Amino acid sequence: MRFFEGLSDRERAVFEAGITLGAIYHQFTGTPVNRDNVRVVERCIEEAASLQPCVEDVEVSIEIPDGSEDNYGGYTEVNGRNLKVTVITRCGEWRVKARLEFIEELDYPLMWIEEIERVER
Amino acid sequence: MRFFEGLSDRERAVFEAGITLGAIYHQFTGTPVNRDNVRVVERCIEEAASLQPCVEDVEVSIEIPDGSEDNYGGYTEVNGRNLKVTVITRCGEWRVKARLEFIEELDYPLMWIEEIERVER
Amino acid sequence: MRFFEGLSDRERAVFEAGITLGAIYHQFTGTPVNRDNVRVVERCIEEAASLQPCVEDVEVSIEIPDGSEDNYGGYTEVNGRNLKVTVITRCGEWRVKARLEFIEELDYPLMWIEEIERVER
Amino acid sequence: MRFFEGLSDRERAVFEAGITLGAIYHQFTGTPVNRDNVRVVERCIEEAASLQPCVEDVEVSIEIPDGSEDNYGGYTEVNGRNLKVTVITRCGEWRVKARLEFIEELDYPLMWIEEIERVER
Repeated sequence: MRFFEGLSDRERAVFEAGITLGAIYHQFTGTPVNRDNVRVVERCIEEAASLQPCVEDVEVSIEIPDGSEDNYGGYTEVNGRNLKVTVITRCGEWRVKARLEFIEELDYPLMWIEEIERVER
Repeated sequence: MRFFEGLSDRERAVFEAGITLGAIYHQFTGTPVNRDNVRVVERCIEEAASLQPCVEDVEVSIEIPDGSEDNYGGYTEVNGRNLKVTVITRCGEWRVKARLEFIEELDYPLMWIEEIERVER
Repeated sequence: MRFFEGLSDRERAVFEAGITLGAIYHQFTGTPVNRDNVRVVERCIEEAASLQPCVEDVEVSIEIPDGSEDNYGGYTEVNGRNLKVTVITRCGEWRVKARLEFIEELDYPLMWIEEIERVER
Repeated sequence: MRFFEGLSDRERAVFEAGITLGAIYHQFTGTPVNRDNVRVVERCIEEAASLQPCVEDVEVSIEIPDGSEDNYGGYTEVNGRNLKVTVITRCGEWRVKARLEFIEELDYPLMWIEEIERVER
């Protein structure tokens, strides 16, 4: 497509991985979650994000720490500290594995590229 | 709880229904959806919203009109036109049925109270 | 409007206050914020929420605690702990003042009705 | 930082541009907007997105088409059809210009890289 003419397949896979992580974080943080519905929320995020261009696979894990539900509402919410995401994108011969996870030493929910590999078409 | 001393149970049920509809709309519109994942997205919204205070039941239906997936991405997104929600709240003796649905004559995704009934405790 | 026939003006003002608080929370939590842009974000929330039905006034205050920007990104985000909102709705003769604020004893970002008053039309 | 060791500066600038576009879309679509508050909403998005890593500049334009406010609420909302974004990221010697705009022929709010240039450090 003409819009991506200036971009290599490898760069496109990197770009789409970034879009998908940014989208997941800002779409779903704030969602009410507890031990009872956590798997449904994880699956929803996985299946919704999988629809985006070049996305091959998405794995989502939301941790519900002990005590995080012991408040007035009896639930917590998806946030930068409890959300872990792995996104696999593929464009042409290139496959990218991108991650979102809260990194204690940075005090920040980091999004990064963990691996780029060339695969057979 | 002292925060709700000035409010009748009936009003509290109305208030919580409003919160839940506003929350659903602004949390989940924008979520990528197509025929393949729509049931998972509906269930996620239902189960997440059910955690909120005084919510007894939530039913969500997302319509995927013909052609709405025939674009570059192959999916559409949850929005004010395709999202229908029924929320049941209960506070003391009062049960409220609230709705969200796009109303053509208003050209607006309206949130309203359809029914308030007194139930046995 | 026929949709609100079963609801008193007082209840309608309560309902719309709930909608507006739920909407603000789930639309704007997650927004990147620090001392430099906080007033712009507060104003955006105030002016966006003021457009909703029956809303007369909205005041938003986002607290940026010391140290909350001292992370990898140099910013924090709008969340249930730093967001305070006052919404005034009006329907007919009734004016409602609703609040959102994190309540430590509940460990929860509570939404409640602080005051309902009858005003001259 | 060790997390980005496998990525060139050029790729990092592309990745961060993707994150920022995905973040903007999924954070802010759904925000109530009309002619009166549109500039405040645009500025809020610009200033919030500018805080994200490697982002040098963000320009946001939200179009309010004639008639889009002539509904029950008197406003529309930020969505994939009315939102245009330009994001500039910079990493080391590389500067990336990324765009979000609804493309009629694709019937899709496309995010793409418009330009990558090498700049003096």
